[in-house]
Amino acid sequence: MSQLREQALKAKEASYQLSVTGVSQKNDALIKIAEKLIQKKDYILEENKKDLLHAEENGVKPTMLDRLRLTEQRIYDMAEGVRQVVALKDPVGEVINMTERPNGLVIGKKRVPLGLVGIIYEARPNVTVDAVCLTLKTGNATLLRGGKEALCSNLALTAVMREAITEAGLPESTVEILSDTSRETAKEMMQLSGILDVLIPRGGAGLIKTVVENATVPVIETGTGNCHTYVDDSADLEMALSILINAKTQRPSVCNACESLLVSEKIAEEFLPMAKTALEEKGVELRGCEKTRKIIPINAATNEDFYTEYNDLILSVKIVSGIDEAISHINLHNTKHSECIVTKDYANSQKFLKSVDAAAVYINASTRFTDGFEFGYGAEIGISTQKLHARGPMGLEALTTIKYIIYGNGQIRG
Amino acid sequence: MSQLREQALKAKEASYQLSVTGVSQKNDALIKIAEKLIQKKDYILEENKKDLLHAEENGVKPTMLDRLRLTEQRIYDMAEGVRQVVALKDPVGEVINMTERPNGLVIGKKRVPLGLVGIIYEARPNVTVDAVCLTLKTGNATLLRGGKEALCSNLALTAVMREAITEAGLPESTVEILSDTSRETAKEMMQLSGILDVLIPRGGAGLIKTVVENATVPVIETGTGNCHTYVDDSADLEMALSILINAKTQRPSVCNACESLLVSEKIAEEFLPMAKTALEEKGVELRGCEKTRKIIPINAATNEDFYTEYNDLILSVKIVSGIDEAISHINLHNTKHSECIVTKDYANSQKFLKSVDAAAVYINASTRFTDGFEFGYGAEIGISTQKLHARGPMGLEALTTIKYIIYGNGQIRG
Repeated sequence: MSQLREQALKAKEASYQLSVTGVSQKNDALIKIAEKLIQKKDYILEENKKDLLHAEENGVKPTMLDRLRLTEQRIYDMAEGVRQVVALKDPVGEVINMTERPNGLVIGKKRVPLGLVGIIYEARPNVTVDAVCLTLKTGNATLLRGGKEALCSNLALTAVMREAITEAGLPESTVEILSDTSRETAKEMMQLSGILDVLIPRGGAGLIKTVVENATVPVIETGTGNCHTYVDDSADLEMALSILINAKTQRPSVCNACESLLVSEKIAEEFLPMAKTALEEKGVELRGCEKTRKIIPINAATNEDFYTEYNDLILSVKIVSGIDEAISHINLHNTKHSECIVTKDYANSQKFLKSVDAAAVYINASTRFTDGFEFGYGAEIGISTQKLHARGPMGLEALTTIKYIIYGNGQIRG
Repeated sequence: MSQLREQALKAKEASYQLSVTGVSQKNDALIKIAEKLIQKKDYILEENKKDLLHAEENGVKPTMLDRLRLTEQRIYDMAEGVRQVVALKDPVGEVINMTERPNGLVIGKKRVPLGLVGIIYEARPNVTVDAVCLTLKTGNATLLRGGKEALCSNLALTAVMREAITEAGLPESTVEILSDTSRETAKEMMQLSGILDVLIPRGGAGLIKTVVENATVPVIETGTGNCHTYVDDSADLEMALSILINAKTQRPSVCNACESLLVSEKIAEEFLPMAKTALEEKGVELRGCEKTRKIIPINAATNEDFYTEYNDLILSVKIVSGIDEAISHINLHNTKHSECIVTKDYANSQKFLKSVDAAAVYINASTRFTDGFEFGYGAEIGISTQKLHARGPMGLEALTTIKYIIYGNGQIRG
């Protein structure tokens, strides 16, 4: 048996114990994790330093180095994040729709943990702690495969968390992490059918594509966002500008940032010059369709541009004939993440809300709000861009499923 | 572009129109389908006869021929089934958890259709009508790929339904069916990422395995059931016998039938001889573990037997030391479908309910009840054995998803 399979089976075994563990004991483990992260911070920082040195030697990009770097403050922040999870309501155990059938069977739907959750992610040590705490809170075991650049940090964080978990009387294998970060092992993990109950990739489009193409276990696709802002005929242009600037520039590297601007032809001549000035002031490069370029002098957008999530200070721009073309353009090009219309027209606002196919559809607000914290969930395991199980920001409930519980007294089927 | 892709894109386009269609128009289309199935019954029966002749020539098994065969009565039954779908509540459009956030954003979760639903199934023409009606009722378009032996019947049924759908003012491509039933095309269908919103295989373990291994689109696994009946120390043995006989023999070919009997060693000497007599009277072959064979003379069960869904009059039998071994044996061997304990002990009943990992867990009732109609859903698109999205019998709601709708008045993120 491969080491991966052995670890996975141990974690699966642990998941059965966790599934019948009450919330007090799970919270106790979380509190101990928070304490121990701070207590062992020197060890964690030392291990993190090894990763950083190695990454620098390999010429890793500064943005990635920043995501990889832990500091004393960041460890305090991690611990604070764990304590916030303690305060959240555990969704496990709730029974809904309990009813008595005509034959006397009493049937209810009980919320239960998923079981063993796999997470594949990039070189971000904070995800290690975050993912473990959310899955533990909901009674799941976790199998982690982090980016190879963060291996020493991840092993250290996991060791610390396992110590805390054991002290709380829960099985060590609540968390298992792969120390072999090869692609072959990652692929083997994606195909642990019957062992892994769900696999959540957290990272860029490339990682997610690899997982979707190779996994045989159920996957929740997260993240990629080719989000649009559509400025309608009747939009308040000042509001449109404020929303556009926020959606594009407040944090351009994230999935709910705006990547494409659609403008109704009726207001294009007035709005586009305003938008150009304001966006260029923020350092944004605009790439426009032909009609757009007749109004403002910018680079040409290719067909490919309209399918692209830049995650950068670049924006594609297209003039559309009105709401109908806006909707069909979005439904063809988007990644089903977040979409916005800016309008004063009641009928158009409702049409957009109804017809656009996306996890989150906004009237007159920035797409940047698509986020578990902004939606009031207090936590987020990712943003689902698929339609099964969970859609949009995933809070704790997305880490659970239901089972039917049936109370009988000898019923048989006739 | 392949013909499959062309059909899928047409159906995807239709799905956008369907997603904004009200329930009256969808019901109108269903009523017209019911009428037209009867009106065109001679044509349908003629096409079905071609399939039957061809199947007989190819030496297809009688049980499969029976599933393939349409009769006048079966067409009337189909039409009646469609009328029952008309009477069901459409889950689409409901908005839940609508709340105002501190920044004034009003956020709600709206139930919406999945979009384009793919169904891959075996040579059962009734599934063609059933699947189309349930997906249409919930505002989805459907891409069908049925078993090759039923091709003429399926093309005829689809042509009739498309005529009815068009007369109701809905797009013809609400239903698309593959006329090419090759394995290559089926595989291409499983990989229509970005077009197919979900793929539901309906059929035996082989079909489901092929889909799970090849699909890149989201899949809902259905059907396979290695279900257990555990007879606890304190069971009412007459009740246990009645439940066991029902679960094993009332319809042995289906997924919620019992495939494995677990007996506590404390009552094995009393119960096993009773069970043997009653089961053998019904023509059931028993295959037992070593301890079992010391009490009753039956064939030996291999390790493989305890993983097998026979779908036939065969039952594996194992003596366990008590509730804990029963639970761990089930969690290791089952397919997460339906599991039953027969007991008079309160604590053991609750432990079993809590610890067994399955879609449906029964105390003192036959596993045969796991069914959309028996659970009161009025319809069933299949029984999910996975944990994502839907678990257990899937009614109309399983064919929908949610989207967040957000009403703002200029909010931007700080």
